[in-house]
Amino acid sequence: MPFSYVSHLHCPKCEKTYSSREKHQLCACGSPLLVAYDLNELRNKLTPETVATRKPNLWRYHELLPVEDAAHIVSLGEGMTPLVSMPKLGKEMGIEHLYMKDEGIIPTGTFKARGAAVGVSKAKELGVRQLAMPTNGNAGAAWALYAARADIKATVVMPVDAPTITRNECAVAGADLYLVNGLISDAGSIVGEAIRQFGLYDASTLKEPYRIEGKKTMGLEIAEQFSWELPDVILYPTGGGVGLIGIYKALTELQALGWIKGKLPRLVAVQAENCAPIVKAWKEKKQTSEFWPDSSTIAFGINVPKALGDFLVLEALYKTEGCAIAVEENAIVGEQQNVARLEGAFICPEGAATFLAARRLREQGWIRGGETVVALNTGLGVKYPNTVDIEVPVLQPSDRLSAERIFTE
Amino acid sequence: MPFSYVSHLHCPKCEKTYSSREKHQLCACGSPLLVAYDLNELRNKLTPETVATRKPNLWRYHELLPVEDAAHIVSLGEGMTPLVSMPKLGKEMGIEHLYMKDEGIIPTGTFKARGAAVGVSKAKELGVRQLAMPTNGNAGAAWALYAARADIKATVVMPVDAPTITRNECAVAGADLYLVNGLISDAGSIVGEAIRQFGLYDASTLKEPYRIEGKKTMGLEIAEQFSWELPDVILYPTGGGVGLIGIYKALTELQALGWIKGKLPRLVAVQAENCAPIVKAWKEKKQTSEFWPDSSTIAFGINVPKALGDFLVLEALYKTEGCAIAVEENAIVGEQQNVARLEGAFICPEGAATFLAARRLREQGWIRGGETVVALNTGLGVKYPNTVDIEVPVLQPSDRLSAERIFTE
Repeated sequence: MPFSYVSHLHCPKCEKTYSSREKHQLCACGSPLLVAYDLNELRNKLTPETVATRKPNLWRYHELLPVEDAAHIVSLGEGMTPLVSMPKLGKEMGIEHLYMKDEGIIPTGTFKARGAAVGVSKAKELGVRQLAMPTNGNAGAAWALYAARADIKATVVMPVDAPTITRNECAVAGADLYLVNGLISDAGSIVGEAIRQFGLYDASTLKEPYRIEGKKTMGLEIAEQFSWELPDVILYPTGGGVGLIGIYKALTELQALGWIKGKLPRLVAVQAENCAPIVKAWKEKKQTSEFWPDSSTIAFGINVPKALGDFLVLEALYKTEGCAIAVEENAIVGEQQNVARLEGAFICPEGAATFLAARRLREQGWIRGGETVVALNTGLGVKYPNTVDIEVPVLQPSDRLSAERIFTE
Repeated sequence: MPFSYVSHLHCPKCEKTYSSREKHQLCACGSPLLVAYDLNELRNKLTPETVATRKPNLWRYHELLPVEDAAHIVSLGEGMTPLVSMPKLGKEMGIEHLYMKDEGIIPTGTFKARGAAVGVSKAKELGVRQLAMPTNGNAGAAWALYAARADIKATVVMPVDAPTITRNECAVAGADLYLVNGLISDAGSIVGEAIRQFGLYDASTLKEPYRIEGKKTMGLEIAEQFSWELPDVILYPTGGGVGLIGIYKALTELQALGWIKGKLPRLVAVQAENCAPIVKAWKEKKQTSEFWPDSSTIAFGINVPKALGDFLVLEALYKTEGCAIAVEENAIVGEQQNVARLEGAFICPEGAATFLAARRLREQGWIRGGETVVALNTGLGVKYPNTVDIEVPVLQPSDRLSAERIFTE
């Protein structure tokens, strides 16, 4: 039995196909490429029961991943992140069955580890020696660290105002790191020019086909963690939208295998009001989005004014009867505090935006009473120390605590 | 079949016993209390095969944990952290089979989550409504977050120079937080006074018996991850030493159950040269340590001049034919970079000290060729952003990357 059932690459726009055993980036028509598997072959050869006996990381689904030789796997133990019940927050929101898929509990501290693990592993299998990418921070950190483990040289360019800690992660991994006095689009131009000039492998979002496959495992895990009985709604903080595309791809593959039945969960793309191109397109029933000028949000990871895969994100929303929603910038930090105070999880602002969206959709009645809802937290709060602004009393060693504060609850 | 096989508490110094269904802190003699289980009863009722079918978190070992009613479990999905092979680092060190148990991949980003999960769950079961503790940072953050989830009010006091991010974690969890212009011993005095005055539950290290049980699960997981065939050496960064005490306790319980056989792994307590009381005591073959004056290390989490459980740490070293070793302060950051550049893991300075100790013990021949070695990384590097000191070129959007840097490897 083969380790992977990957068959080929195909273009979702022009239907052209490519070999998955050669390096490919975008389709000749400019679209991202998707990975296809021989699901008919796999259907009778793998069961959920077999998967259940495997180690708790994303490689437990190796037949549905593109790496053909296990020796090429570059792993730090990523995947099978916790699905955490949020009873108190859910009660406050009127959502009886609220869960968090916690992508902070993963190497590099964000869900970017999934794309990097599968993307770098496949790059290694294809013989890549040098890759380059622009990043808003977390993806660059993840790819730099996994590339170090794979002995692939990584060149990373990020905006000067990307989170400092992601800069440190790239540097400590030994990546060739640059800051640009501008936006991620400026970083993208510089990286694009270097790729053309020096023939580097382009690891930019959706410009290589395998990152989606890594992100797809979030959908596979959610299905397995719900014992193959899916939730009603899955909310995802959407910048480039690769995770949402991946989750939708996972669910359609599981349908083809016969592991899940019935209606798919309604997928929700969550954006911030100050950067909401997908929401605008969805409201206008468009198939693609328009560039969002002057975007800026505290949820830095979803500050993406125009996503290359916007048409795939919108397709996933339409096909699952999902929606897109923009949340108020100035309520994100408050929701982050709610989650910590009620449920003990210190999540990132992008994750907080997603819980805020769940709250709003319940208020609007779009999420109905009794439904099961999963919000994706895409990373650790500790990677964004500046979102917490506190004043703490400073004591001298001889000071004592006061009864008033101790007994005020 | 009961959920837990806990039987009672006992004092390792004076042998006095206590009920595990009432709140207890230290023994009347001043020693920490340990939790006992009815292992003879359990021996024929639980098998490794049954454990293997359970969810990948530390509660898979619930029979060996003190919580008697599953309804009292306060969980964020902690445990079953990755065991990661470190082939390139191992080759550089001359350790053929080197592994990292990565305790960064856990809620709150440090192994303190284990003690907090089990400690807070048991506190909830015992009806605790308010707890208090001094902390160097990470333990306070973990207990504050789990206490929030449990609806227990937490009062936390930490030195002003504890890592800022841990301060933020406590605050965002809604803990009653204070900084003290002094050391953890000053924080301890203030907390101790408040506990006496207001009757709070004392969650200080080893002053409640259940934190060890949470830390114990690291030992249970290592045994399971090695298919119950243990490694030769386990290295642990030692401040309070609770994890080392816990791992030793886990191994002796697994021996009693008959799940592991033969010699136990040699346990190694790793300290920094500037705070090495356990190392000094071990070299002098003492049963307890002396207070280490003016201690200071970049590995802030192991800056503990006198541990309450020192006698238990030393006993574990003697019983397993292990050792204690102090590493050079100024080589810790370099080892942290080695681990990131070679293996793609950004670990905390305490974890880096442990790899540095493995390197030194191999150089000295104490670790022998062909042995299997596990180093514990106790937390995420991203929680200590200041250990990475970098200079990064800043580009203007019109700049281009140079061929010299791209092709220099």
